[in-house]
Amino acid sequence: MPETGQPTGEERIDRELPEQDASELAHPADTADHLESLELEEQIKFIKRLPVRDAASSIAEMGHHERIELFQRLNLGMASRVIANMAPDDATDILAGLEEEHRRSILARIPPRDRVELRELLTYDPDTAGGVMNTDALVLHQDLDSDQAIALIREQVEDKEIPYYAYVVDDESRLMGVVSLRELMIAPHTMHLEDLIQSQRLIAVHHETDQEEVAKLISNYNFLALPVVDDEGKFLGVVTVDDVINIIHEEASEDMQSMVGAGMDETTESPWLYSVKKRVPWLLLNMVNSAVAAYVVHLFEDNIAKITLLAVLMPVVANMAGNSGQQALAVMIRQMAVEKFERKKFWLGVLREARIGFINGIMLGGTIFCVVWVLTQNLLLSGVVGTAMWMDMFVGCTAGASIPLVLHELGRDPAQASTIFLTTITDSVGFLSLLSLAGLVLLGG
Amino acid sequence: MPETGQPTGEERIDRELPEQDASELAHPADTADHLESLELEEQIKFIKRLPVRDAASSIAEMGHHERIELFQRLNLGMASRVIANMAPDDATDILAGLEEEHRRSILARIPPRDRVELRELLTYDPDTAGGVMNTDALVLHQDLDSDQAIALIREQVEDKEIPYYAYVVDDESRLMGVVSLRELMIAPHTMHLEDLIQSQRLIAVHHETDQEEVAKLISNYNFLALPVVDDEGKFLGVVTVDDVINIIHEEASEDMQSMVGAGMDETTESPWLYSVKKRVPWLLLNMVNSAVAAYVVHLFEDNIAKITLLAVLMPVVANMAGNSGQQALAVMIRQMAVEKFERKKFWLGVLREARIGFINGIMLGGTIFCVVWVLTQNLLLSGVVGTAMWMDMFVGCTAGASIPLVLHELGRDPAQASTIFLTTITDSVGFLSLLSLAGLVLLGG
Repeated sequence: MPETGQPTGEERIDRELPEQDASELAHPADTADHLESLELEEQIKFIKRLPVRDAASSIAEMGHHERIELFQRLNLGMASRVIANMAPDDATDILAGLEEEHRRSILARIPPRDRVELRELLTYDPDTAGGVMNTDALVLHQDLDSDQAIALIREQVEDKEIPYYAYVVDDESRLMGVVSLRELMIAPHTMHLEDLIQSQRLIAVHHETDQEEVAKLISNYNFLALPVVDDEGKFLGVVTVDDVINIIHEEASEDMQSMVGAGMDETTESPWLYSVKKRVPWLLLNMVNSAVAAYVVHLFEDNIAKITLLAVLMPVVANMAGNSGQQALAVMIRQMAVEKFERKKFWLGVLREARIGFINGIMLGGTIFCVVWVLTQNLLLSGVVGTAMWMDMFVGCTAGASIPLVLHELGRDPAQASTIFLTTITDSVGFLSLLSLAGLVLLGG
Repeated sequence: MPETGQPTGEERIDRELPEQDASELAHPADTADHLESLELEEQIKFIKRLPVRDAASSIAEMGHHERIELFQRLNLGMASRVIANMAPDDATDILAGLEEEHRRSILARIPPRDRVELRELLTYDPDTAGGVMNTDALVLHQDLDSDQAIALIREQVEDKEIPYYAYVVDDESRLMGVVSLRELMIAPHTMHLEDLIQSQRLIAVHHETDQEEVAKLISNYNFLALPVVDDEGKFLGVVTVDDVINIIHEEASEDMQSMVGAGMDETTESPWLYSVKKRVPWLLLNMVNSAVAAYVVHLFEDNIAKITLLAVLMPVVANMAGNSGQQALAVMIRQMAVEKFERKKFWLGVLREARIGFINGIMLGGTIFCVVWVLTQNLLLSGVVGTAMWMDMFVGCTAGASIPLVLHELGRDPAQASTIFLTTITDSVGFLSLLSLAGLVLLGG
């Protein structure tokens, strides 16, 4: 959740943090960095020396894999004290990563009120608004006036994590509006909240809304927080802008990594066997897809036996089209990550890429034509290579732009394995066009 | 900058915004979406009908290319009124995108005070803290007490965009500390700001700090804003969390797109000739690099003439290693985007990938061995293909993880053209190992 102040201690103007011992570590994010640099045993010793609140806030800042590993080794007493002192969204995230039985044992040891809340939060899908929301929010009844509201806020403000908005509800806890601290400060003293929010266009999301959607809303509207409600419009919690920053980082990693068939949540610190497990299925898919391109080459083995230079040129054509297609793919996937999906706009984007592929194909196909001509003095061969590259780059760009859209229309993640599908197409089309054209033009059919 | 309230009007619970006409468009982001869907002529008509403040805030929410295009067509009077009513960071961004002379004409028409500020802002590199910061901030002298401070804030709050922190300065405008609205509200009435910030560890950045660094600081420490200072520590402005969201989106697009040699700032709406211009140099580089792999094949043309099946298997080996290397590349680039650079940690990441490549190479190499054996009954050929794939996947993973680090050590962008370098390596090593092994084992040298 957003920090409201700055850490205390020494001045820091844009330079690396100096090596610090525990006593100097001012900010939980720094302590978390320090923790991650230690061996597991050392981490546990270090944690035990910290006040439990500090331990909780530092662990909250650690990476997902790292904090799960740490929790697997903490004793139950310590683990439950840390969980009880953590913001509910972080606590849920850790609990969800533990074994069923371990989770139950920890939950059994924390105060009943927190336990009920965490059990509730654990029921939400972690990639939805419900899964990333915070339940610590300022909730005010709509019948209060602004003076009463400010008095209440002053009482509660130390406990609550998000002190910039207060959420106004009716008798049935249904969310009626949102007021900012600033609005309260400048409102007439006896104005009722109900009147203050009257003309408001309330923006809230259902707890099942995908986290990527939530991130887009917050970043489009420049909100600091977005309320989450249930089917009946009852207020459940808020997603804050710093959660959104994490979501955006996460989604960007997921896109880039799943595009090539790496695990969505892999980092350089994931256990390496985890990465092996995540990548092998996609590598197998890639092998099956490569077989398609290989089969195309197989069909033309005779031509290759006659003109072995074709085997030299094959990878150049396929590689150029693959690169060209990946450029289209990257631009399209990023656009889909950042913008609201609009079918017409995105298909116009495909048209744009087709045009780019056509022109780039002419230019690079022209270049390879010249190079091969200079090297071989064989006009027909040069023409065949140039034409094959042109066609393949055109197909590559068009396919690269279309694949994420097709995946999206099929209800799949637009990035998933997209380069694998793309290279299947560019390799096959490249080999087919080069080898069949060569057969027709150079070997007379 | 962050919104403090919610837009007013109808209720909205997680559903698509309905078609709206101008009068219903409540939030500048929605107006911007609407504007972008119009033809240029229509955009200008629409803008002219809006109050100038609304026009300014809506244009501020448009995409970079779109708003520059619009500005190139607006008449000078309108353009300068809009610029004068815009947040300084957005105004600077637009002005920086216009021709020198056009920019000068617009600046000549806006109020002198704003003009001086914008000229100042235009001197900062757009990718630095100075280039993305906002100058509209609450600045308070350290001699004020908290009551005086609150009174001042209440006066100014309507004008200022970032009302969550106030920046405390000394007589020479040097930044001494930061106080949040919340801290002021709960502080004793007559406490001086100087005492309030006494034990604070101030975190600020120099105006030349790279925007990516700024984003990492804000997202690591969960700040809502980060102050920017000059060489003498004088307060210049603040970078806010919503700017950071844009930076993170931007940097993710830059990484993914520059990785394959597309333009860093391309979107599906960039002019297509702009994309052609950005991509062609990298495609040419890719062609030169492909020539290396082609040359390797050329060296072994004789072997291919004797065993044309090698030409069938060549692309499979290269493709598998390329895919495997891209997985390592993606994980490494994302990690470098999200985390502070630590040499040792990242090189350990390379070791991790080498291990993954080794094991995945054995598994997939083993698979292709079996497949080729079943299809050809040729044990030696199967062994050659399996071994070549194993070696190439190992090299691919290691190279994929190393390339971003090497680029970083050379002071280059770690992502730039990285897949192009990677495929050069995986293609060359794949062809070399397959064709040379085949020569040794199958053709006896």
